[in-house]
Amino acid sequence: MTWLELAPADPFGIQTLPYGVIHTPALSGCAVRIGDRALPLYPAASTLRPELAWLLDGSTLDRLLAAGPQAWSAIRLAVTEWLSEDRDRSVIEPLLVDLKDVSMRLPFTVADYVDFYASANHAANVGRILRPDAEPLPPNWKHLPIGYHGRSGTVVASGTGIRRPNGQRKEGEDVLFGPTARLDLEAEVGFVVGVGSAMGTPVAVDAFDRHVFGAVLLNDWSARDIQAWEYVPLGPFLGKSFATSISGWITPLAALTHARVAGPLRSPKPLPYLDDRGSSWNLDLTLEVRLNGELLSRPPFASMYWTPAQMLAHLTVNGASCRSGDLFGSGTVSGSERGQVGSLLELSWAGREPFLLSDGVERTFLQDGDRVSITATAPGPAGSVIGIAEVSGHILPAAR
Amino acid sequence: MTWLELAPADPFGIQTLPYGVIHTPALSGCAVRIGDRALPLYPAASTLRPELAWLLDGSTLDRLLAAGPQAWSAIRLAVTEWLSEDRDRSVIEPLLVDLKDVSMRLPFTVADYVDFYASANHAANVGRILRPDAEPLPPNWKHLPIGYHGRSGTVVASGTGIRRPNGQRKEGEDVLFGPTARLDLEAEVGFVVGVGSAMGTPVAVDAFDRHVFGAVLLNDWSARDIQAWEYVPLGPFLGKSFATSISGWITPLAALTHARVAGPLRSPKPLPYLDDRGSSWNLDLTLEVRLNGELLSRPPFASMYWTPAQMLAHLTVNGASCRSGDLFGSGTVSGSERGQVGSLLELSWAGREPFLLSDGVERTFLQDGDRVSITATAPGPAGSVIGIAEVSGHILPAAR
Repeated sequence: MTWLELAPADPFGIQTLPYGVIHTPALSGCAVRIGDRALPLYPAASTLRPELAWLLDGSTLDRLLAAGPQAWSAIRLAVTEWLSEDRDRSVIEPLLVDLKDVSMRLPFTVADYVDFYASANHAANVGRILRPDAEPLPPNWKHLPIGYHGRSGTVVASGTGIRRPNGQRKEGEDVLFGPTARLDLEAEVGFVVGVGSAMGTPVAVDAFDRHVFGAVLLNDWSARDIQAWEYVPLGPFLGKSFATSISGWITPLAALTHARVAGPLRSPKPLPYLDDRGSSWNLDLTLEVRLNGELLSRPPFASMYWTPAQMLAHLTVNGASCRSGDLFGSGTVSGSERGQVGSLLELSWAGREPFLLSDGVERTFLQDGDRVSITATAPGPAGSVIGIAEVSGHILPAAR
Repeated sequence: MTWLELAPADPFGIQTLPYGVIHTPALSGCAVRIGDRALPLYPAASTLRPELAWLLDGSTLDRLLAAGPQAWSAIRLAVTEWLSEDRDRSVIEPLLVDLKDVSMRLPFTVADYVDFYASANHAANVGRILRPDAEPLPPNWKHLPIGYHGRSGTVVASGTGIRRPNGQRKEGEDVLFGPTARLDLEAEVGFVVGVGSAMGTPVAVDAFDRHVFGAVLLNDWSARDIQAWEYVPLGPFLGKSFATSISGWITPLAALTHARVAGPLRSPKPLPYLDDRGSSWNLDLTLEVRLNGELLSRPPFASMYWTPAQMLAHLTVNGASCRSGDLFGSGTVSGSERGQVGSLLELSWAGREPFLLSDGVERTFLQDGDRVSITATAPGPAGSVIGIAEVSGHILPAAR
């Protein structure tokens, strides 16, 4: 029990404690979120646990990420105590900052960024839309988690404005250049690697939590017309590389243990390196996607076919190393219902079936000025709720 | 004229001066190559040009890359003087180290790595091999330089052993797991970004040399069977991500100005942002690919359809930023003749037409223990020759 006054269902109570990097006119640095406040960690640790303070110094969470599971546990335990025990209240309470006075920075240095495609509902919807005469899922889809590398240099923190990209698109026989006419969102969950691996040594599915620090929400902004023209044969490039937004707060895996659920039945049976029956990291997260404040959909992460542990095992099975700061996204999370899809491509069926907002306006893709927000919650211990912090972004007009 | 004794046709004479990071038992750090020797730059600058020394300190070339064209010119001029003027000889000569006593380190911190597909001969060969019933080039190919992001964390320096990757492949109706049976090389030229760009601000084709520092040779090791099974619809992933090798020495663009030649005739006419008729960065480089010392092919870089300046313009036209340390590869360089192709996929026509080595042995793809080396030369001023340093690697058996 914390000495702070929080609603019982606050998704950022003492059971969550996500890490981020905050900036105010008075201070910058690593922090933990509790309710609608942030606790700057370096000043707290300097006073109460000076031997841990060096891990929490600096303008990113990079040191904490690289320090590994024992350090992660020690710091989570310390922060929990500071916010629970009256003994520490006189030190901690004066340090707390209101979130409304804070801007969020990118919380870690992104090394490699990989995006997967692990929702069967999403992949099948995309197949039906783009390749209506073929099987919805490609033949490899149920054998491996399909993924590709994205641009780590354009991963930005929640709240960053997203400029509508220019690019080439095909219209009939013509190749046109200009602002994308089909700007989309993709609601995903991202996973942040803390402890890397050596080249030649794959990460087993059951070693997931020895390497991965935590989860963020991720919006894989997509320009569908640019992507459609460029992606054969080498995959998405400029249709995605202009920006990827992530939550400013990383919810540690330690907060998500109650959200673990069994994986789906998989047929054909996955190869041994993808067999996670002994240790599933399928997570019962429910996402909410909002456009200008209005709820569009509630994608269920528990419906994913491949789990993040399988993604990391696949990513490294060829001997590729992973590094502290690697980020991988799940791919768009879509459930089986229209109110559960994680992209406007699906919600508007490629623009052919506009959806209606509460003000009666029909919409398909994103317009300049639109604000997109994705949030998520999961079950926590003793009926509590765990949050993954919002990722948001608003659309700026294209550059001339 | 340098006071060192070098053969007139030495590709690493005073006209070239590539930069790298060397390691010996006695020292580590930034260096310039001259002939078969290396000049450690920090000790030289500390004595002769102390105001420049900070740019040459540290275990990578990162500071030099980020410093921009004026600093690049100043340092190249200084090094040229040190190696030319008798005045500086007493300081410089004792610092020189034999390359045989040196191991090379990765010369810079790789930010994002992108690989293009810019040789029409290569792309058409791959099309004929993989999609024999379709047009050899995809419909978008002559409209834009196709590219995709690769794994920056597995870019390694020349000389690093390459472990044969494990992975999934399709054989008939079966999905198998194990060491790739079709390990290939791809002979490419890589370009290293020094000065980054801001999000939302594309880099124009004629701004290429204000951003790019220099060129390396790049071997984009490829597991063809893994790649063939995984790459539809999101592109190459584990078939490439296990390793990419680059030269230990970066040849600066300043050494390649005599190698600039007109680009090819392009039809259809490229969009304005790809129009390079005022300033072509097509380069007259001739690559040489060797297997266990035996010359396999001589790919002509001047035959590329898209130039590196067009690649960078395309990469950023959607508003994506580039960063100091970004690396982009040209894609496999292949000429129109069999003796000019840059991959074994092409040389052996996907294994269907084995090639003969001088010892009479037939070969298709790479075997454990094979050593692959790629070198390149270009015309320099006054009949001299400019080199891009070798990228080599040898194949280690797959992990069990």
